[in-house]
Amino acid sequence: MKFLRRIEILKRKSFEEKNFDGFLLFNDVNILYFSGFSGASCLLIPKDGENRLYVYSVNYEQAKAECKDFRVELVKAGENFIEKVAEHVKTLKIRMLAFDTLNVEKYRILARRLKNEAKLKPQSAVIWELRRFKDSEELELMRKAAELTSMGMKAAYDTIRPGIREYEVAAEIEYAMRQRGSWGTAFETIVASGPRSAYPHGGCTDRRIQEGDLVVVDIGAVYRYYRSDMTRTFVVGAPSDKQSKIYEVVKLAQESAIKNIRPGVEARAIDIAARKIIEEAGYGEFFVHGLGHGVGLEVHEPPTLSQNSKNRLESGNVVTVEPGIYLVGFGGIRIEDTVLVDKFGAEKLTYGQYPFKVP
Amino acid sequence: MKFLRRIEILKRKSFEEKNFDGFLLFNDVNILYFSGFSGASCLLIPKDGENRLYVYSVNYEQAKAECKDFRVELVKAGENFIEKVAEHVKTLKIRMLAFDTLNVEKYRILARRLKNEAKLKPQSAVIWELRRFKDSEELELMRKAAELTSMGMKAAYDTIRPGIREYEVAAEIEYAMRQRGSWGTAFETIVASGPRSAYPHGGCTDRRIQEGDLVVVDIGAVYRYYRSDMTRTFVVGAPSDKQSKIYEVVKLAQESAIKNIRPGVEARAIDIAARKIIEEAGYGEFFVHGLGHGVGLEVHEPPTLSQNSKNRLESGNVVTVEPGIYLVGFGGIRIEDTVLVDKFGAEKLTYGQYPFKVP
Repeated sequence: MKFLRRIEILKRKSFEEKNFDGFLLFNDVNILYFSGFSGASCLLIPKDGENRLYVYSVNYEQAKAECKDFRVELVKAGENFIEKVAEHVKTLKIRMLAFDTLNVEKYRILARRLKNEAKLKPQSAVIWELRRFKDSEELELMRKAAELTSMGMKAAYDTIRPGIREYEVAAEIEYAMRQRGSWGTAFETIVASGPRSAYPHGGCTDRRIQEGDLVVVDIGAVYRYYRSDMTRTFVVGAPSDKQSKIYEVVKLAQESAIKNIRPGVEARAIDIAARKIIEEAGYGEFFVHGLGHGVGLEVHEPPTLSQNSKNRLESGNVVTVEPGIYLVGFGGIRIEDTVLVDKFGAEKLTYGQYPFKVP
Repeated sequence: MKFLRRIEILKRKSFEEKNFDGFLLFNDVNILYFSGFSGASCLLIPKDGENRLYVYSVNYEQAKAECKDFRVELVKAGENFIEKVAEHVKTLKIRMLAFDTLNVEKYRILARRLKNEAKLKPQSAVIWELRRFKDSEELELMRKAAELTSMGMKAAYDTIRPGIREYEVAAEIEYAMRQRGSWGTAFETIVASGPRSAYPHGGCTDRRIQEGDLVVVDIGAVYRYYRSDMTRTFVVGAPSDKQSKIYEVVKLAQESAIKNIRPGVEARAIDIAARKIIEEAGYGEFFVHGLGHGVGLEVHEPPTLSQNSKNRLESGNVVTVEPGIYLVGFGGIRIEDTVLVDKFGAEKLTYGQYPFKVP
């Protein structure tokens, strides 16, 4: 069972290689990653003994049915799950307790209850060491999410025309993904047209798309909790020389970055490969974000592809490559794919080459 | 401008009624509530002087265009915004600094930088005092979100039939909402059929709906960041006596709760009004969650309608009323509306009475 394997790896890295004897997970997505269940408040992994999921009554029956390998602890109405967890930590005589993340108010409750009993340390790095490597089962789901996303982009290409509203395009995109089995959207769909395309996170509004507009379409499907991320930029009607030139620069920057990806390379080197092309074309200051980010259960995860990234890419990473140029008053162009890093370089998971100009 | 008014109220409650001389907001939704902008990392509200939004370069141009009433501070690539904020807190000589929420790692960075300079205290209660009262502009958006949600439910009623997959129903619901201007889904759409309807958070899968199934449909649209929440339960084909009986109990429980809502009433009393009806019918132990929750920019907000709630309802609250009965192996039934509390009681914002049985 993949979840138990993940827990075994976490235990090895935290309990054998370090001195912890317990791990508490509070973050929803981390709990999902290690248990397959999305409705628990906490997962306690002790060095010895059963792994415990803390679940309020609303999700208790579902947890019992779906999480046979875990001890499911019912948190009753009015009970504070943090206090319940602290009691169990004491009973199990855990002394060195790692946790993933916690807000300062909850942390204080937990620390007070465990005073003189257990030492608490945030240890999210080890979790990201696991999560940023996608195993074969995860890759199957990510490939499906990317396929659904690519279908959504086809719907965008087929729909964009003068007069249609941005949110109407979004409706067609999301419908195309959903009908084919998407679980939802990986993030808020972006259909940013005309001057709004100059804002990288322009969302989508009731603006009507016009002849001459640039339209940035940035979308993602979700499949069994795994996400994907893809952007294409279209022009409505014949592109101007400036539009065409910038489009070619961004395209070249993306291709160059993707060609440079291989296991072991510094993530910052990939950002720089793309940035150099944009700088040489004279648009350096208008590429206002990092080149990309990891994708998985979350749409923004480690590793980071930016000038300041300290990550190295490794086989099994799934990352976006998304250079862009944004000129206020003129518009923006971004091209993005989700790619898998493997032994031989980068494989695009999202796909579909479209003409710049919509029909 | 509504955002500046909200800031003025926060300043009065924190700086005049308490002794703070600065407020830091880190939570995305809080920043949105006070600034109208969704792409900032922090909002600093000093007792005297300009309010500052901290924005990374990716959103900088958009922030400058959309947030004319704020000083927009650019956080450059590689800069840590927490350290930048701490510098400004020192320069402004803020001594008593309130903040909304922060994870323990970021809190430690901030506390270290401000050691001997400013005292830091979490103060989320005052923010919820504001946010749980919906002003007239918010109510206009929430009414629209509820209308879009109600259109989605009509699509569910028109679509559910034997043989269709749960996610195909979700596709029609979301398309109906999106085409009419919804910004997305307020939460993961639930279309839980057959035995899966017994799980309150059953999500939606590729299961084909069958004759005799109960189908719980729990959906929400989003309009300009405001959310709504609505559930109907349908039966496919002629209902059994047990299905009909439970349906009537849940319906009566919801009606009774809604009738009891008025400003000043304890939220727990509303939960108890519904729970009593379900208990008297012999299903008390199968109503495994609280009666409802606040809705607004988030789908789950204060106030809480549960047996242990310490909240009182007040005019301007928007809450869900959603009793349910869940029998493992048999199925579940839940009926939910989003309602506005006003001077005279509760007004349903979501609407649409459907027959229990789909056509």
